[in-house]
Amino acid sequence: MANTVCNEAKTLPISHRAAVYDCPGSISTKIIELKTPEPGVGEVLIRLTHSGVCHSDLGVMTQSWDVLPHPTPKGQVGGHEGVGEVVKIGPGVPEGRVKIGSRVGVKWVAKVCNNCAACLEQADGVCFGRSISGYFTPGTFQQYVAGPADYVTPIPDGLSSADAAPMLCAGVTMYAALQKSNAIGGDWVAISGAGGGLGHIGVQIAARGLGLRVIGIDHGSKEELVKESGAELFLDITKFDPSSMVREVQASTDGLGCHAVIVCTASNKAYEQSLELLRFGGTVVCVGVPEGVSIPIASAKPAHLISSQLNIVAVSVGNRKDAKAVLDMAARGIVKTKYTVESLDNLTDVFERMSKGQLQGRVVINL
Amino acid sequence: MANTVCNEAKTLPISHRAAVYDCPGSISTKIIELKTPEPGVGEVLIRLTHSGVCHSDLGVMTQSWDVLPHPTPKGQVGGHEGVGEVVKIGPGVPEGRVKIGSRVGVKWVAKVCNNCAACLEQADGVCFGRSISGYFTPGTFQQYVAGPADYVTPIPDGLSSADAAPMLCAGVTMYAALQKSNAIGGDWVAISGAGGGLGHIGVQIAARGLGLRVIGIDHGSKEELVKESGAELFLDITKFDPSSMVREVQASTDGLGCHAVIVCTASNKAYEQSLELLRFGGTVVCVGVPEGVSIPIASAKPAHLISSQLNIVAVSVGNRKDAKAVLDMAARGIVKTKYTVESLDNLTDVFERMSKGQLQGRVVINL
Amino acid sequence: MANTVCNEAKTLPISHRAAVYDCPGSISTKIIELKTPEPGVGEVLIRLTHSGVCHSDLGVMTQSWDVLPHPTPKGQVGGHEGVGEVVKIGPGVPEGRVKIGSRVGVKWVAKVCNNCAACLEQADGVCFGRSISGYFTPGTFQQYVAGPADYVTPIPDGLSSADAAPMLCAGVTMYAALQKSNAIGGDWVAISGAGGGLGHIGVQIAARGLGLRVIGIDHGSKEELVKESGAELFLDITKFDPSSMVREVQASTDGLGCHAVIVCTASNKAYEQSLELLRFGGTVVCVGVPEGVSIPIASAKPAHLISSQLNIVAVSVGNRKDAKAVLDMAARGIVKTKYTVESLDNLTDVFERMSKGQLQGRVVINL
Amino acid sequence: MANTVCNEAKTLPISHRAAVYDCPGSISTKIIELKTPEPGVGEVLIRLTHSGVCHSDLGVMTQSWDVLPHPTPKGQVGGHEGVGEVVKIGPGVPEGRVKIGSRVGVKWVAKVCNNCAACLEQADGVCFGRSISGYFTPGTFQQYVAGPADYVTPIPDGLSSADAAPMLCAGVTMYAALQKSNAIGGDWVAISGAGGGLGHIGVQIAARGLGLRVIGIDHGSKEELVKESGAELFLDITKFDPSSMVREVQASTDGLGCHAVIVCTASNKAYEQSLELLRFGGTVVCVGVPEGVSIPIASAKPAHLISSQLNIVAVSVGNRKDAKAVLDMAARGIVKTKYTVESLDNLTDVFERMSKGQLQGRVVINL
Repeated sequence: MANTVCNEAKTLPISHRAAVYDCPGSISTKIIELKTPEPGVGEVLIRLTHSGVCHSDLGVMTQSWDVLPHPTPKGQVGGHEGVGEVVKIGPGVPEGRVKIGSRVGVKWVAKVCNNCAACLEQADGVCFGRSISGYFTPGTFQQYVAGPADYVTPIPDGLSSADAAPMLCAGVTMYAALQKSNAIGGDWVAISGAGGGLGHIGVQIAARGLGLRVIGIDHGSKEELVKESGAELFLDITKFDPSSMVREVQASTDGLGCHAVIVCTASNKAYEQSLELLRFGGTVVCVGVPEGVSIPIASAKPAHLISSQLNIVAVSVGNRKDAKAVLDMAARGIVKTKYTVESLDNLTDVFERMSKGQLQGRVVINL
Repeated sequence: MANTVCNEAKTLPISHRAAVYDCPGSISTKIIELKTPEPGVGEVLIRLTHSGVCHSDLGVMTQSWDVLPHPTPKGQVGGHEGVGEVVKIGPGVPEGRVKIGSRVGVKWVAKVCNNCAACLEQADGVCFGRSISGYFTPGTFQQYVAGPADYVTPIPDGLSSADAAPMLCAGVTMYAALQKSNAIGGDWVAISGAGGGLGHIGVQIAARGLGLRVIGIDHGSKEELVKESGAELFLDITKFDPSSMVREVQASTDGLGCHAVIVCTASNKAYEQSLELLRFGGTVVCVGVPEGVSIPIASAKPAHLISSQLNIVAVSVGNRKDAKAVLDMAARGIVKTKYTVESLDNLTDVFERMSKGQLQGRVVINL
Repeated sequence: MANTVCNEAKTLPISHRAAVYDCPGSISTKIIELKTPEPGVGEVLIRLTHSGVCHSDLGVMTQSWDVLPHPTPKGQVGGHEGVGEVVKIGPGVPEGRVKIGSRVGVKWVAKVCNNCAACLEQADGVCFGRSISGYFTPGTFQQYVAGPADYVTPIPDGLSSADAAPMLCAGVTMYAALQKSNAIGGDWVAISGAGGGLGHIGVQIAARGLGLRVIGIDHGSKEELVKESGAELFLDITKFDPSSMVREVQASTDGLGCHAVIVCTASNKAYEQSLELLRFGGTVVCVGVPEGVSIPIASAKPAHLISSQLNIVAVSVGNRKDAKAVLDMAARGIVKTKYTVESLDNLTDVFERMSKGQLQGRVVINL
Repeated sequence: MANTVCNEAKTLPISHRAAVYDCPGSISTKIIELKTPEPGVGEVLIRLTHSGVCHSDLGVMTQSWDVLPHPTPKGQVGGHEGVGEVVKIGPGVPEGRVKIGSRVGVKWVAKVCNNCAACLEQADGVCFGRSISGYFTPGTFQQYVAGPADYVTPIPDGLSSADAAPMLCAGVTMYAALQKSNAIGGDWVAISGAGGGLGHIGVQIAARGLGLRVIGIDHGSKEELVKESGAELFLDITKFDPSSMVREVQASTDGLGCHAVIVCTASNKAYEQSLELLRFGGTVVCVGVPEGVSIPIASAKPAHLISSQLNIVAVSVGNRKDAKAVLDMAARGIVKTKYTVESLDNLTDVFERMSKGQLQGRVVINL
């Protein structure tokens, strides 16, 4: 029942444009021509039209995360929020799984093994045999990429490819984080970094998709975006010190604090603050990875955790089911990313601005 | 339907023996005579026969926990694992709830408000209006104590009062901690401090009551107790450094690490180590409160938590349901505390030995 | 700390107006004067201003449910959705719990024992020692009623008493049913009887409070109410036969069917149909109690349940936590019951119209 | 990274022995020679040494289940509890996934699609694209079979192949059923059909693997097996009428009834009884498929379900994770199936005895 002859939509190029990290450790990308690959067994070849740019790409390029086990190789094609069209189907793909012309997406986790202990738990993000798109596996800052037919994500009709791209990492991750928070409709959730690429998507999923009441926390310049996204309350971090912020949050939550706090910034201060904003039994969800040398969450003291029965959980990325769920929300108009479209030639500049905190919302590269 | 006339089994004394903290901040107790109280509205008066001695009593007496909001008052009667017989029923107790002569237990949380946000979540341990037995509420190191008819815990027939006493705090807490670990039958759970008063009870609940596979971690002198309690593996902390202990745990768990680690010691080192012993998605449960100034869990770094999707949860104490469940396990012989019985006159000495780590298992005071 | 002297706001009457079932088994109520009670130990006296009228009241009055263990007594005061003001506090109520003048609500379950196995599970609705308001316990179709200070439900500021009344049974029950369905934001839920007193509240909680996608099923006359309440799709039961309804539901749910179906009608046909509308792994929640002799759900065949891994769960009523949650939703404007206000004198007429299916939305009695 | 050249352990035969259903609808099998297949893309070829015989095989052969959508084809090779050794690896299997010589198992679900809505929920048993071993897909009553490298189940070292075979359907299913019951260590679970092939395995998983307290229900002839398997109480269905059985169960469970009842017989009477044995909030798990025309569970009446808040759930089969978990339990000696080994030539006779209820425990065919 598997395809024995590869299907092919049209003549494929011999090579295509790609942006590579030519100097890992610093912010620099270079456009080169790469040989267009054949899809392997079980794979499809995708002509990418869009790729989101994620803060994790910056972390990989500049090697600023000490949890990445190996230095990023020179010549790495980055990117992990890719959307495109299937143009060729490799051998061994069951008939009917995917069609030439279907739109599909590539995620941070490009491939899982389907067999390890983590896969048995649907914990795709920690699959022992996973490939990471844009880190030792060719990423989505290029015009063609191959991916497993059973792991690329179908894009729903009625959702544009540019709108879909940021869902594949930012959307999936925030959806998973909100699920893991155990908050239910009517509960209060604070989102730290609410105006960022992940944050404003998270606010929308929470407020519009799940019925949560959202307190957005970020720099004052993000207030409008955060409130438009559905936050009931916005707290400008430049106007509160830690204790006045706790008081403000309690005043808005019947004196109790939040059921959950999602930290999607890379700030150690935000992590330290997060536990203070919780009510008894509340949960901090770790999403943002602080740069530089890792340090403990300064408020994660056993006596404090115990006396209020607090929880800390962590999400590296969501799974296939989360991807489907958040794309459905986007297709319904529940989630609408704020992004600007840029060309591949501007990628280095995009990263420069990202590193300086100058981006408003997400950037999507038109490939 | 409520009792309008108080029922009374026998002539009650005017006063009774009690041990009080005569010099809070240091290890010292003094036996005095206290006026035997009348049960208030909704209360019963209990003639206590046994009280367990818990490490928390030491913490309260010596004021060694910085999370206790107020200094322990001089003259406080300590103790919170009391078992005795109902001898008088106060006004307003519904008929049939409790009988003269019934055996009941008093827990760390002596009383809850039944109405606050925490009570609505059955989070007795963090009830906003709770009373703590032995801390601003007369405790169980005395011969008579009053308690709410709807919050004292019935002791099952067939379980001796001395065996029941340690269940009321150590048992309840470890049962709740194991429930909160989310481990299910067949999963690996490490218990740090496995040979202590809480630990060896936890090993039994885990291994015999819940089908978990237990790795006990403690000083070598506790090996026999820990293994008798049902641990498959014992790790002597004096024979492993942190990295060799991680290797040993992984070697025993298919290279993956534990599903959960319950920390029931007061050691900051044990907390730091605990996260290293987990598999992806695993959970540390905080139970033991380190003494002195609180410090963060040194390994609770966002990048580390995220890359393995680890969880940290915390239990201050279980609720009424947990108390019933663990007493049922004890009545079935699943849990059998190792304890020695001492007289009230020896209480100061018991605390001295506890503070030096010289106790084997639990001490129960015969009142 | 308990009140030893009763607090009293103003002079209380000696007697008050009440509607009683003067001929249980048929639809008939009669207004009489009843002696105004004193609050007992742990109770408050409430001056009721409003009471919702629920289909269950009709069931109790006409004795049409074969699960009620005893015939309804002649002279029973019915009603179980009462809202009023605390006017007197009985002995033994802890200070600070409730104030004279506070607004509180009375629910179907008027009182629980706080001690039985069901109470330990927060399953208030099946408490072994519960009292049912309006069935062997004086109900809310009267001007004064006493209730337990720790079980009456505080009414949030900003929610009118008339709006609050239907939340106390219809709201609580539908909230609990939706929680028990295990549906999460984005899932499809069909509500059978969507335009009824319970149904249209359930549609609002689901669609606006929890982010669920709702298919409302009812007679065509209810379409406007159901759609206004937030249903994406309305199915007129008079226009579909069972198989065309299944096709319609599947066509709207990617060919899969619903994640859950809440049956809040009293129709055996609706129950039979409900299982057909589910996707694999879906859940039917039983809420409505069919009248007359109970018959099995005709589609609840083991082979069918197993081949699609279907679930059937049931909710008799929610608990205190559910009551607080749904009242908060109502105070936020998420849930807005459609009701008409009637005087106590019209109660018999209201029941007549209810029994003929002529009511649109809920009726609230102004007391 | 995929194998481009097939690995092969030894010379493979051209044909091999297989038992086929030569007359579907009646009990009859015939031994024939079948062409030994090549493993397809992503597949391995397995030299089977053992296959369990399951009641479902009888159902397929005799077409006694009305939920099977198509008549069983003549010439079908049945069987779905197969264990053997990998002898050849097909193209496209990632290196390292499976080795020549590894022991693996084949389950009722022979293959899943990994992509449908059910697969996203890990609901393998209801995968929309699944293949059923022994029903339109060649089963395990033969010496060689091909299966997907990522779906066959590794057999743990230290567990014999004959012991492993019954775990692959009976074990997986009962493990999944017990998980779905939501019972936790210390809870009471009744197993109806406790002495059967599924039942006695379920008793062991429950009592020894999960800490549940088991009431076994079956014919008196099964008492010894059921008690040896770990049941605390055995109820002989020939000695109790329905109401006396309810009384007996309540007497053993503090007057409350069971937390869960697992029905693994094919008896409609057992289903009807099951709901009566539950406590409030309890759960019936449907596992056994009654033969003949499907009828509703006679006690599944909405009023009854609602008044005690009862649940009915259903399990068709477990997933990969359940398979790993139950095989681990078997390897630890927690579960030890009672079985007799028979030769392939006796298969018809085995089915004859099975249909007459004459088998004690499970039969494993030595291939």
